[in-house]
Amino acid sequence: MNIRLYNARILTMEESRDIFEGEIWIQDEKILYVGSGQNPHEICDDLPYKCIIWDREVDCGGNLLMPGFKNAHTHSGMTLLRSYADDLPLDDWLNHKIFPIEAKMTPEDIYHLSRLAILEYLTSGITAVFDMYLTPETIADAFDHMGMRCVQTGAVNNFSQSPEMVEEMYLKLNKKSPLQSYIIGFHAEYTCSKELLEKIAALAHKYKAPVFTHLAETEKEVKECVERYGMTPTAFLDSLGIFDYGGGGYHCVHMTQEDISVMKRRGLTAVTNPGSNVKLASGIAPISDYLKAGVNVAIGTDGPASNNCLDMFREMFLVTGLAKIREKDASAVDAMEVLKMATVNGARAMGLDNADVLAEGKLADIIMIDLKQPNMQPAHNIPKNLVYSGSKQNVAMTMIAGKILYEKGIFYTGDKPEDIYRKAEDIKRCHNL
Amino acid sequence: MNIRLYNARILTMEESRDIFEGEIWIQDEKILYVGSGQNPHEICDDLPYKCIIWDREVDCGGNLLMPGFKNAHTHSGMTLLRSYADDLPLDDWLNHKIFPIEAKMTPEDIYHLSRLAILEYLTSGITAVFDMYLTPETIADAFDHMGMRCVQTGAVNNFSQSPEMVEEMYLKLNKKSPLQSYIIGFHAEYTCSKELLEKIAALAHKYKAPVFTHLAETEKEVKECVERYGMTPTAFLDSLGIFDYGGGGYHCVHMTQEDISVMKRRGLTAVTNPGSNVKLASGIAPISDYLKAGVNVAIGTDGPASNNCLDMFREMFLVTGLAKIREKDASAVDAMEVLKMATVNGARAMGLDNADVLAEGKLADIIMIDLKQPNMQPAHNIPKNLVYSGSKQNVAMTMIAGKILYEKGIFYTGDKPEDIYRKAEDIKRCHNL
Repeated sequence: MNIRLYNARILTMEESRDIFEGEIWIQDEKILYVGSGQNPHEICDDLPYKCIIWDREVDCGGNLLMPGFKNAHTHSGMTLLRSYADDLPLDDWLNHKIFPIEAKMTPEDIYHLSRLAILEYLTSGITAVFDMYLTPETIADAFDHMGMRCVQTGAVNNFSQSPEMVEEMYLKLNKKSPLQSYIIGFHAEYTCSKELLEKIAALAHKYKAPVFTHLAETEKEVKECVERYGMTPTAFLDSLGIFDYGGGGYHCVHMTQEDISVMKRRGLTAVTNPGSNVKLASGIAPISDYLKAGVNVAIGTDGPASNNCLDMFREMFLVTGLAKIREKDASAVDAMEVLKMATVNGARAMGLDNADVLAEGKLADIIMIDLKQPNMQPAHNIPKNLVYSGSKQNVAMTMIAGKILYEKGIFYTGDKPEDIYRKAEDIKRCHNL
Repeated sequence: MNIRLYNARILTMEESRDIFEGEIWIQDEKILYVGSGQNPHEICDDLPYKCIIWDREVDCGGNLLMPGFKNAHTHSGMTLLRSYADDLPLDDWLNHKIFPIEAKMTPEDIYHLSRLAILEYLTSGITAVFDMYLTPETIADAFDHMGMRCVQTGAVNNFSQSPEMVEEMYLKLNKKSPLQSYIIGFHAEYTCSKELLEKIAALAHKYKAPVFTHLAETEKEVKECVERYGMTPTAFLDSLGIFDYGGGGYHCVHMTQEDISVMKRRGLTAVTNPGSNVKLASGIAPISDYLKAGVNVAIGTDGPASNNCLDMFREMFLVTGLAKIREKDASAVDAMEVLKMATVNGARAMGLDNADVLAEGKLADIIMIDLKQPNMQPAHNIPKNLVYSGSKQNVAMTMIAGKILYEKGIFYTGDKPEDIYRKAEDIKRCHNL
């Protein structure tokens, strides 16, 4: 498919390139051209294609094209548990509400529940997610069937999955399809024995590969790790060699300055999850400290049972709003920094270097933001409008790998949303929820 | 106009009435009937109308009808300054960025800028606002012309407006139209001389009327008031008799236990503005303490220059999320409590007792929430879904005084949004912004 998106404002998210008026040409899954489009024939001469026959030309009506958001931490299949057990501390919530139900969920359940999450991602302009959940193969199927990009990571703990399974998935899912990939990972220090963690470290070394995990989400987790091993989770995991080839942590709320130095030294990403962290009263992550130290920060929604939505606009506002409160400084973490976290930095964490910015040769993971809504007026500063007043309501189009999957409120994934909703309700009933 | 909204789920927000399936009948500006609608002819016999001819019948498709949100603190005309000067401390921002431009804004400017805010309110299901800004008469015109309910309050300070003007507006705007009303108010303790405040207290006594003001928004404000008068702002204002007939404060972030006792004793409302409070690094209000003390809590967006959006869904999540963080307790301030704040409690603060819940005889200020969006699935708990995962994208209809002003993304206020946007851009250019 050749698609021309014209009459647009474009925010490529490349360093030092301001928003400009122009157009983007897409061929199959990639971007062929990004520019002013003022001399298309000359441009044509410069390109391998003398004359392009467009399958579709979209008049963007002056709206904004930008890279899709990268949701750098989620558990898609947890849609089943949205609003099922709220207003509880993380520990209670996880051990007494979530784990017992998860133990009963089938791979097929998780296939259908992930599809529900995918619909929601599309409404929020999310073009790729970094997913950690129970059944990687049916999750990959769900994302593949709906045309969405997904980077999975292992969820090994003492009760489910195993290093052997992580290795199998690492080899299998990285070859499955261009939309799917897999990064080594485990659930968390507090749910894994030392032996298990040593096996994960061995895997990282075998493949010279990065590793991701839940990290320093709560004070309790850090305190108990220090009691167990005499070290913080970051220091302890690093001492096992787990981060020798990079990777990062989800949440990273309760970190010491030494932990942050480890993050920097190992090139780790701190994936912040502010919606989940406030809802579960886990705390406020030290985002300004990460930025000062030069640590890569990305943004995730966390799963829909702890957040409870999959909305990058809410997360973006929270990242900067909570940083301002934590630092008692209204100038902390400015809007452009947040947009980078939600796009480029997320792509970097997820190994999606070809889906980070809008440029020739990059993957066509593009969203259109409706600037003709009252919350985007007047246009003093579009990035600030996006971060401080943007909303899912502004997502006019979500394109992944050159395919438009959501446009003006309609899904083009080949599914009827009602069927996906009905399936989720069926699963809920099956589990007596 | 007789409108029948049928095939709906209904959340009336009356105490101890659960969500039920049914319909709502509207005659002119009021609700005629709320119920299951199962025996319409019998119902007809019970009503003064034997047979109603519907001007419109709306199949709600199983979606939710509930009272519109009451945005209990805003400065609508500040749309001009959205994303104009962010990432600054409140004091700098107000004195060096906002006040100098406001000094140049004309009544006509504010008319047009308020209209831009009204469009945004409608997209967020807000059916009434509590507005404080510079030119009450053109503000009332803007709301009246677009059919929106607005309760204004005085913005007296040492530099603009006056107690005489507040009295004039009190008498005039409370008679202007059924959609407009006015409550005595002033900008803040720190912008008003003691003499000015004594005149406001005299007005409150003359009309036995409540008074509203910005209150204890920042630590600095409280500290300086204590230095000036040896009392916190709440205690000081109360000592002048300003709250003898009720009223309340906007923000109420930095309050002592004694301040909270004053709030309770005087029947004051604490209007919380969490989006603004995080963005300006003002702090987190003690919402749990208010609830424990039995103080009425309502929710406001604050103006679009400090927030920067006019979105009650974001505010609702922030109210509970920030309370959970402040209290280090994930069970703090549950979802239903937040919904009450955003509807019934706001109405109470704003003197809109006839627009608080959905019941026969009440004003038809009703919104429809699209439950067929992925963020509302599955339906374990609709109130929790609204507060924890709701978004402007879920607002399918906004009705004020029996008139549908916004439906499925289209505005029915008699204006083209583009004309209102253009006007805002014109004003921006006129002021060299």
